Amino acid sequence: MELDQLIRKVTDELMKELKNRTDVSPADAKAEAGVGRPQVSHGLQESERISRLIDHTLLKPDATGEQIIKLCEEAKEHNFASVCVNPTNVSLAWDLLNGTPVKVCTVIGFPLGANTPVTKTVETRDAIANGASEVDMVINVGALKSGDYDLVLRDIKAVVDAARGKALVKVILETGLLTDEEKVKGCLVAKSAGADFVKTSTGFGFGGATVDDIRLMRKAVGSEMGVKASGGIRDYESALQMLEAGASRIGASAGVKIVKQAKDSESR
Amino acid sequence: MELDQLIRKVTDELMKELKNRTDVSPADAKAEAGVGRPQVSHGLQESERISRLIDHTLLKPDATGEQIIKLCEEAKEHNFASVCVNPTNVSLAWDLLNGTPVKVCTVIGFPLGANTPVTKTVETRDAIANGASEVDMVINVGALKSGDYDLVLRDIKAVVDAARGKALVKVILETGLLTDEEKVKGCLVAKSAGADFVKTSTGFGFGGATVDDIRLMRKAVGSEMGVKASGGIRDYESALQMLEAGASRIGASAGVKIVKQAKDSESR
Repeated sequence: MELDQLIRKVTDELMKELKNRTDVSPADAKAEAGVGRPQVSHGLQESERISRLIDHTLLKPDATGEQIIKLCEEAKEHNFASVCVNPTNVSLAWDLLNGTPVKVCTVIGFPLGANTPVTKTVETRDAIANGASEVDMVINVGALKSGDYDLVLRDIKAVVDAARGKALVKVILETGLLTDEEKVKGCLVAKSAGADFVKTSTGFGFGGATVDDIRLMRKAVGSEMGVKASGGIRDYESALQMLEAGASRIGASAGVKIVKQAKDSESR
Repeated sequence: MELDQLIRKVTDELMKELKNRTDVSPADAKAEAGVGRPQVSHGLQESERISRLIDHTLLKPDATGEQIIKLCEEAKEHNFASVCVNPTNVSLAWDLLNGTPVKVCTVIGFPLGANTPVTKTVETRDAIANGASEVDMVINVGALKSGDYDLVLRDIKAVVDAARGKALVKVILETGLLTDEEKVKGCLVAKSAGADFVKTSTGFGFGGATVDDIRLMRKAVGSEMGVKASGGIRDYESALQMLEAGASRIGASAGVKIVKQAKDSESR
């Protein structure tokens, strides 16, 4: 099926499902930095432009305080968009990055997404209280697969409401577990719920970002939402491919390597 | 280093760390079923004895409602100890198992354990409100590795306090990420915090249960606590080895197969 046709079909179906709900607001155009398509940044080197689109990520369960400190130092040095750390490390990252342009990003209901809206709400509030200004939540994958769009929507809205005015919300679809139709549905529900970004993957064993998925997700959400590519992006070339396909943010643990390679390509 | 010597050394170190705390209570002997060493069950067939020690597990993020219904039906048929499901599926499992001997077990801070005590507390309360009577929480692995035993203890105590009188608490160490010394420390902190069980693994890519780890953990916690072997237990023989090494509960998605093999071995 052609992409446009698929999206139209899925949108129709989904809108029928959701039409009786009154609390769904259309996503407003986001004025905040980092949302939507990457801006043309005049006067920036390519490596600087890429740096500012990277969420420098360390989500291993056994990450130590020392490793978080190193991550934050690298993020400051390279002017990354954010560090992306687990909730237990948000306070430490905030202490180290407070007053710099680097944001603290954390993850909610991660990496399975199979928590209740109650837990995701509290985890979001707690993360913001500890210093997070971006939260990457995992969609309820099982509910999406079971066709329980009402729960998928309530779950995302719970996080959006808890974060309103305080943190950007990115919705991780875990694309590796979804059909194309489910990916589009996930995008549309995330948009209806008022989230700021859709994001491909957790990076925890269910497959990573692909150029095709980024293209599909960008098409599904339009230009006013962000699209974050994450999972398996290990070099400059892959990062560039994701940006060209429509990504506006890159999640990677290989940020330092990516920026070095970008600099190398400039000097050539 | 000999096992006894290792445990003595680690206990001494740990007790020094924790000696200034006043809120650590010695673990009481647990009277509840399923805690501690498996009971001798007179008159039970081996397959029946094994069945009653199995947490029938489905924690995939994309598990659908239909799959949860099947899991619960199998658990009733085979008289398993519990079904172990993600928090989003607790209500459904409770609806299906309420009034039967099969408990609803869920997971807290799963599978990374890198959430804050605030989130783990609320997730525990919410799970109990939805029908869980056993909660398997993941220890804060990074804090354990960083030597922040105070946080490790507070984190477990938060769940134990939220569950007191309402649900058994099992503490998942994620042994595949730990040294032997860290495993013993994890056991001792879990015991100090008043947890009911220690458990080996999440089954999410960080290695599973081994006979050596079960032996070490049983030695570390003594006879009054439960030890749950989980991760990679796919047949009757492995389950039996874990029980012989000191496990008092088995977590597995292969419960039906394990019981069938146990029955086959009886009829031989």
